[in-house]
Amino acid sequence: MPDSTQPIGIFDSGVGGLTVLAQIARRLPSERLVYLGDTARVPYGTKSPDTVARYARACARVLLSNHVKMVVVACNTASAFALEILQDELPLPVLGVIEPGARRAVLSTRNKVVGVIGTAGTVGSGAYQNTLTALEPGLRIHTAPCPLFVPLAEEGWIDGEVPEAIAKKYLDPMLRAGVDTIVLGCTHYPLLKNTIGLAAGPDVVLVDSADATSEVVAEILAGLQIASTTAATDSPRFLVTDSPDSFARLGARFLGHELADIQWVDIA
Amino acid sequence: MPDSTQPIGIFDSGVGGLTVLAQIARRLPSERLVYLGDTARVPYGTKSPDTVARYARACARVLLSNHVKMVVVACNTASAFALEILQDELPLPVLGVIEPGARRAVLSTRNKVVGVIGTAGTVGSGAYQNTLTALEPGLRIHTAPCPLFVPLAEEGWIDGEVPEAIAKKYLDPMLRAGVDTIVLGCTHYPLLKNTIGLAAGPDVVLVDSADATSEVVAEILAGLQIASTTAATDSPRFLVTDSPDSFARLGARFLGHELADIQWVDIA
Repeated sequence: MPDSTQPIGIFDSGVGGLTVLAQIARRLPSERLVYLGDTARVPYGTKSPDTVARYARACARVLLSNHVKMVVVACNTASAFALEILQDELPLPVLGVIEPGARRAVLSTRNKVVGVIGTAGTVGSGAYQNTLTALEPGLRIHTAPCPLFVPLAEEGWIDGEVPEAIAKKYLDPMLRAGVDTIVLGCTHYPLLKNTIGLAAGPDVVLVDSADATSEVVAEILAGLQIASTTAATDSPRFLVTDSPDSFARLGARFLGHELADIQWVDIA
Repeated sequence: MPDSTQPIGIFDSGVGGLTVLAQIARRLPSERLVYLGDTARVPYGTKSPDTVARYARACARVLLSNHVKMVVVACNTASAFALEILQDELPLPVLGVIEPGARRAVLSTRNKVVGVIGTAGTVGSGAYQNTLTALEPGLRIHTAPCPLFVPLAEEGWIDGEVPEAIAKKYLDPMLRAGVDTIVLGCTHYPLLKNTIGLAAGPDVVLVDSADATSEVVAEILAGLQIASTTAATDSPRFLVTDSPDSFARLGARFLGHELADIQWVDIA
């Protein structure tokens, strides 16, 4: 059984999962955090289920060798294709971002018409659709893959005419279908929240799973009695599979501050 | 020394290099071709030089084990970061796409003001700038990374208002600087040639290195007397590191016909 002094491990295909790390750090300031970004093989959202599962396993192994007490899969595509595999194989609690986000969406919707946007992999997997339907069988669900949102977010091209035109094109069918809630089913999308909100209009609630996920992390640690009881003195450690330099640059945009400790790991 | 009956090996980060394969197949119909797309780790254009060089070496090893007589690096980013390494290390002729494209641009420009567009990696490497300047010291060169062009091409969103607005934004500074020739320094960009041409206007020549590269392939094979002397009866073989299914789908869009023989290789 893991113990309370061990860090929480978080992994993502790249920088996107930093939105999840930020919420966990905010809600659980006593916890030590280790984050792995598989930046050499990013993105996962366009890759096949088998490849994503293989990469997710490799990421989890790195976190295990860093003695984490739980693993957070802070990537929607990896959550969609590999969460059950990791839960079966790892001797630790493993949490994805899909169920926490789906729960928030079910609480939010009034007309029971919900939209889900994400990568081609996440949307095509049916993971959100299955989870939402299990939580609330009567729900009507509309999905749209939004493949340009990740490169827009990574380029920092998050406002203005072009991103708005792209968002309108992606969201138009689900808006015409009357969704009152849209799940941002990719960890990059919170960076485009302003533009997505303009396209969706003021009456549509945007659900960001990062905060919902941090809430479930807190519940799991409390339930297993492995929450940290002493204040964390070290800032998060970051592990990456591509160059630490570009991660530092992009990561600062996601977190709004510099990242202190970034190391390269050789798994890709 | 390789012999004339061996196939030509071509690799790219994904499907983009199929534009190069198509030109080689058209110009050299007697040659057998083996194409490797590193689709599990695509894209290379956002990755660091070390990571791209590592991946390029792994791709070249796969081609060597398939008994190729020469290696064509059909990816601008890999050509920028790994061509010299591969030329040093491999016991075979190795050709990239940058020098052939740069030669065409030098022949095309009248006012000696040339633009280069490509991935962040290719543009940042300075490879085109160095090659162009070596060929024609007086040239004025304007560059622009166009990170959204690859996802646009892969999504097939190649015409209309949004791609045009993106192209205008990327090209505007170099057009104002008076370029009369623009090198399409990424193998995906020929799919957006129509839209890029609308943004650039009718007086600007767009240089596509795929055809220029096929010309140099023919020269090298003739020079070494290893050109095939008997008609090829087999269609190209395709090797991929992610699922053959998605490559088949995207590849058909690039080549305009179905791909017959696609195999998965385990290097990623």
